[in-house]
Amino acid sequence: MAIKVGIIGAGRIGRLHAENIVRYVHDAEVVAVADIVEEAAHRCAEDLGIPRALADYRPILEDETVDAVLICTSTDTHAEIIQAAAAAGKHIFCEKPLALDLAEIDSALAAVEGAGVILQVGFNRRFDPNFRRLKELLAQGAIGKPWLLKITSYDPAPPPLAYIKVSGGIFLDMTIHDFDMARFLLGEVEEVYAAGSVLVDPEIGNAGDVDTAAVTLRFASGALGVITNCRQATYGYDQRVEVLGEKGALFAENPRPHTAVRVDGDGYHSPPLHHFFVERYREAYIAELEAFVEAVREGKEPPVTGHDGKVPVVMGYAAKRSYEEGRPVKLAEIDPSLGTQSV
Amino acid sequence: MAIKVGIIGAGRIGRLHAENIVRYVHDAEVVAVADIVEEAAHRCAEDLGIPRALADYRPILEDETVDAVLICTSTDTHAEIIQAAAAAGKHIFCEKPLALDLAEIDSALAAVEGAGVILQVGFNRRFDPNFRRLKELLAQGAIGKPWLLKITSYDPAPPPLAYIKVSGGIFLDMTIHDFDMARFLLGEVEEVYAAGSVLVDPEIGNAGDVDTAAVTLRFASGALGVITNCRQATYGYDQRVEVLGEKGALFAENPRPHTAVRVDGDGYHSPPLHHFFVERYREAYIAELEAFVEAVREGKEPPVTGHDGKVPVVMGYAAKRSYEEGRPVKLAEIDPSLGTQSV
Amino acid sequence: MAIKVGIIGAGRIGRLHAENIVRYVHDAEVVAVADIVEEAAHRCAEDLGIPRALADYRPILEDETVDAVLICTSTDTHAEIIQAAAAAGKHIFCEKPLALDLAEIDSALAAVEGAGVILQVGFNRRFDPNFRRLKELLAQGAIGKPWLLKITSYDPAPPPLAYIKVSGGIFLDMTIHDFDMARFLLGEVEEVYAAGSVLVDPEIGNAGDVDTAAVTLRFASGALGVITNCRQATYGYDQRVEVLGEKGALFAENPRPHTAVRVDGDGYHSPPLHHFFVERYREAYIAELEAFVEAVREGKEPPVTGHDGKVPVVMGYAAKRSYEEGRPVKLAEIDPSLGTQSV
Amino acid sequence: MAIKVGIIGAGRIGRLHAENIVRYVHDAEVVAVADIVEEAAHRCAEDLGIPRALADYRPILEDETVDAVLICTSTDTHAEIIQAAAAAGKHIFCEKPLALDLAEIDSALAAVEGAGVILQVGFNRRFDPNFRRLKELLAQGAIGKPWLLKITSYDPAPPPLAYIKVSGGIFLDMTIHDFDMARFLLGEVEEVYAAGSVLVDPEIGNAGDVDTAAVTLRFASGALGVITNCRQATYGYDQRVEVLGEKGALFAENPRPHTAVRVDGDGYHSPPLHHFFVERYREAYIAELEAFVEAVREGKEPPVTGHDGKVPVVMGYAAKRSYEEGRPVKLAEIDPSLGTQSV
Repeated sequence: MAIKVGIIGAGRIGRLHAENIVRYVHDAEVVAVADIVEEAAHRCAEDLGIPRALADYRPILEDETVDAVLICTSTDTHAEIIQAAAAAGKHIFCEKPLALDLAEIDSALAAVEGAGVILQVGFNRRFDPNFRRLKELLAQGAIGKPWLLKITSYDPAPPPLAYIKVSGGIFLDMTIHDFDMARFLLGEVEEVYAAGSVLVDPEIGNAGDVDTAAVTLRFASGALGVITNCRQATYGYDQRVEVLGEKGALFAENPRPHTAVRVDGDGYHSPPLHHFFVERYREAYIAELEAFVEAVREGKEPPVTGHDGKVPVVMGYAAKRSYEEGRPVKLAEIDPSLGTQSV
Repeated sequence: MAIKVGIIGAGRIGRLHAENIVRYVHDAEVVAVADIVEEAAHRCAEDLGIPRALADYRPILEDETVDAVLICTSTDTHAEIIQAAAAAGKHIFCEKPLALDLAEIDSALAAVEGAGVILQVGFNRRFDPNFRRLKELLAQGAIGKPWLLKITSYDPAPPPLAYIKVSGGIFLDMTIHDFDMARFLLGEVEEVYAAGSVLVDPEIGNAGDVDTAAVTLRFASGALGVITNCRQATYGYDQRVEVLGEKGALFAENPRPHTAVRVDGDGYHSPPLHHFFVERYREAYIAELEAFVEAVREGKEPPVTGHDGKVPVVMGYAAKRSYEEGRPVKLAEIDPSLGTQSV
Repeated sequence: MAIKVGIIGAGRIGRLHAENIVRYVHDAEVVAVADIVEEAAHRCAEDLGIPRALADYRPILEDETVDAVLICTSTDTHAEIIQAAAAAGKHIFCEKPLALDLAEIDSALAAVEGAGVILQVGFNRRFDPNFRRLKELLAQGAIGKPWLLKITSYDPAPPPLAYIKVSGGIFLDMTIHDFDMARFLLGEVEEVYAAGSVLVDPEIGNAGDVDTAAVTLRFASGALGVITNCRQATYGYDQRVEVLGEKGALFAENPRPHTAVRVDGDGYHSPPLHHFFVERYREAYIAELEAFVEAVREGKEPPVTGHDGKVPVVMGYAAKRSYEEGRPVKLAEIDPSLGTQSV
Repeated sequence: MAIKVGIIGAGRIGRLHAENIVRYVHDAEVVAVADIVEEAAHRCAEDLGIPRALADYRPILEDETVDAVLICTSTDTHAEIIQAAAAAGKHIFCEKPLALDLAEIDSALAAVEGAGVILQVGFNRRFDPNFRRLKELLAQGAIGKPWLLKITSYDPAPPPLAYIKVSGGIFLDMTIHDFDMARFLLGEVEEVYAAGSVLVDPEIGNAGDVDTAAVTLRFASGALGVITNCRQATYGYDQRVEVLGEKGALFAENPRPHTAVRVDGDGYHSPPLHHFFVERYREAYIAELEAFVEAVREGKEPPVTGHDGKVPVVMGYAAKRSYEEGRPVKLAEIDPSLGTQSV
């Protein structure tokens, strides 16, 4: 039998998940959708044939037939809804970041653990077929020990300034995905050094953030990593990974919207990249929900745990402090519980 | 309101279409599925939530609520079912080839025209995003007048010998797709020269067919075309198009399953191609049905007409005769009605 | 000791060879250069430090210290000079085509054989590192038996009409290189079918030639081949080879002048191809001379023999007749001595 | 008239330069070669037809017919020979690094300036056609303001430990090239942060060096840069540059030894990279000497000045200190004279 799912938050990402479950995820069924903007919940329900739409998410938690919820609300409400969902015994898929307050994250994770429910965090890039294949090759020992990781991650255009002001800044809203990718591929990180600059738009600087960053990682294994970020790349959503290792290297290049190439006296012209995450990570969004549903159905550990949701937030704070103080920062300085990790 | 569709034939391609409509084609609804193997119809109906499953397709044609049918049966039944469907006033999507008998095709097309229904033929490659983009660039004049077309089209492995014996042979079951692509991109063809060889499997030769072919086309415009076919390519389904023109060239390369590249002392290793048509033309299959449904809903000409379904069959016979007689053959020799065409 | 070489013909290709020997070919020394335009011989000698410059090539043949000559004159003089050089006991490197008259070629080859001198023909593409590597991979069995060869060969712009009028036409001045490449890679050819069209410039048609061609080859092995030619490609000198075989495929793509790629909102832009043969086959021109000098010094068979020089001319005539008569033509029809070959 | 050049140091790089001048650089002539291993000087002279070979370089400086010298000796002798050459009024091409002692560099540069001779430093990569094209595109404003530079630079295998012990370490013998490339492309750097790790070979760590490094640069313009280095890449000499800017991006990919691709059921296999610098930068080595000779002949500023030779050494020391002290280091901290630069 398909598991019954409630969607909390019917904004862009909530609708995307709802649509993916309705169309692609055979073993799940969306039975309700809630959004504080009730109109959004109703429109989503209508468009996708979801039987129930509400303004308040709590009736979903009270509904005994509901097995799991997807939390797609604004970041500041995640921890509270996780707590409530855990208390109601619902399995939880929560969008990243778990929260911006580490104490809130710890409480939420404790509630999840206490309730014995499953929590999966929405780090969708782990499910991208290209990065996934790279991870498999690493795991198979294709390049032996990994030595040097390079992640390129540029957005097509900056988000609205209003978003930047509440997002926690570039390291917590953008680099956080790359921090997760780094851990996914090479394991735990001990130290972070972040350089940043305001080059795209001075208003971003006025809002207290940077728009271009270069972050150096030191992994527990001794390997090094470099993440480069920029809020603007005119040619689309540039997302690449390279790993150099003792036996060779692995690359995951950008997939392209199509393969048609035009050639003239000026040369060879191939298309720009996918515009943004919806196009680029279409398959990844489906795959992460399939993995969540499988974890719920089989009662097994989800592929992105609560801990996996927390550590990138710690790394985001470490990067932020590193940038502000102009020095490398150990993760243990932000959260001492991460001090004695090893790979 | 969504149009109501009946599927006739629940084999591999019938199921694929049924699934695509159920999942992706918003404006259509599958209301019935028929297959002479009744068990196949039932399984398909059950798996996809289709309300009605039958052994006989005729009740579907008698059902007044049905707007259109998809004919996915074996080739030898296409013409008869088209006639029956047209008589019943149903719009028709028919898999290629329309038929192997040109007189049957003409009768079927006459019936369609007489009934005023829409007929679209299943040349799915026209809807591949890569070839489509190439076609758009051609239409925009990106390379001016096209001079030389090259189509590469290799299957991963030969079909069963039993199929080859009834398919009409390589020129009618395999090259036919490339003939359609040639017309789609550069317009009408006047003459065909086909060279063939038995290299993959002598049993194919014993069955009276070749497994490797090189076909030269002369277009009405004066442009030349070359199609290369082979029944076996160990590295997957190789489907490429190039056009050289007065201002430059266009290429549509093979899309790849993923972008991960492994590098070692032997060099750079990237993945083989998609295995076969289901993977490669996934989006194209959806897009052709969307186009059909749109044509039905809006009462407009479908993007692949009955004439488009017939001409590649004529080209197939011309190629076959060319190969058998060792000389170039004009299309008008096979079907005089194609003799005075111009672009 | 370095062999002593005389250059006969100081036009573009003669100078290119002279310069390559002077700079790169350690075991050879240019001791004289002749050109009926005496001024050209003098300029070449002066620029490259060649001790002797003449209008008449015969004193070079009479010079006992000269070991070998390079014949770089116009095609109509090749056979006569070969005969004279052979009579003088000089080893011979002759530019392609050997001659346009098959009887003249046969006489020249007989003279060479009678004199026991070495004759190498200037099919430079065999020495291109990319095609050479492809040939090595074929020889190593990387794809097992070859089934289908595709050669793409476009010039950047048509030659002067005056040249076309005396060159023998596209099949004898342009496709001849591809005929050699076909034999180099897959062995002997039995039959040729050539389609041609006048698309680039109607004046080429008025001169009795075509400017665009598609040639189908049937190899003695049963394999098929396709050569596409065009006198104009706006993006440079497009020279590619593909081979499909039982275990896979081989590709030799165009090398590029540089690897810099510019990316903007319209996509990825990489440079056009090398302009023409001087740039593209720079290394190949050096390597063919090194091979000739090695053959002379070691008294061994050169890598491109007189027979290798003759067969592509026969193929050129077969292609011409095929185009003119609209039917496939066997090589044995042009030269019965080629009738019983096998691979 | 060709300028007359003396080569000082006939080791690998000295011989390479000598050979390049003899073969390719028309406007220069090698008149003498010196090496403390006199046998090496003699062998070089003999092989290349250089008239004079010596153990001591001083007679070359005393030779009034000599216009310029190439200093290709071990690093610790560079400054002294520059001084002597300047005193003798010879123009100077000196291999990198100028010296490892900044005071020695300053004295040498002062001597050069005092003598009014030309000094060019051997940063050959500036002359690579791929990086050069990228630089031109930058200069043309192809991507507007540059924001983020990424340099990948891996050697195929570590140098002998003996070399590492005297080279000054990875930042001064390897990254120094990348520091030059960074300045060449984006202008002056203000601050460096270097992370390093011993991953390739523990003996390198025992020798007091690291073998893997990630260096962050802050340019005076506000742009950021990232250099990744490793002493070992099994697939060859990996040397790439990327720049992201306001209007797009530029990439200079690795050129490949050949374009032949082998395809089988496992995928597409293309060759590894050029083995090392001699193959990869063949054209660059010639071009830098041509540029030097042109500067000497025309009395103009060389494309890589003494200042350009010094700054990367300062950057190397800054990187070394950054690594040792675990903090970003400003260049002005190493050399106060670099404190007030601007772009």
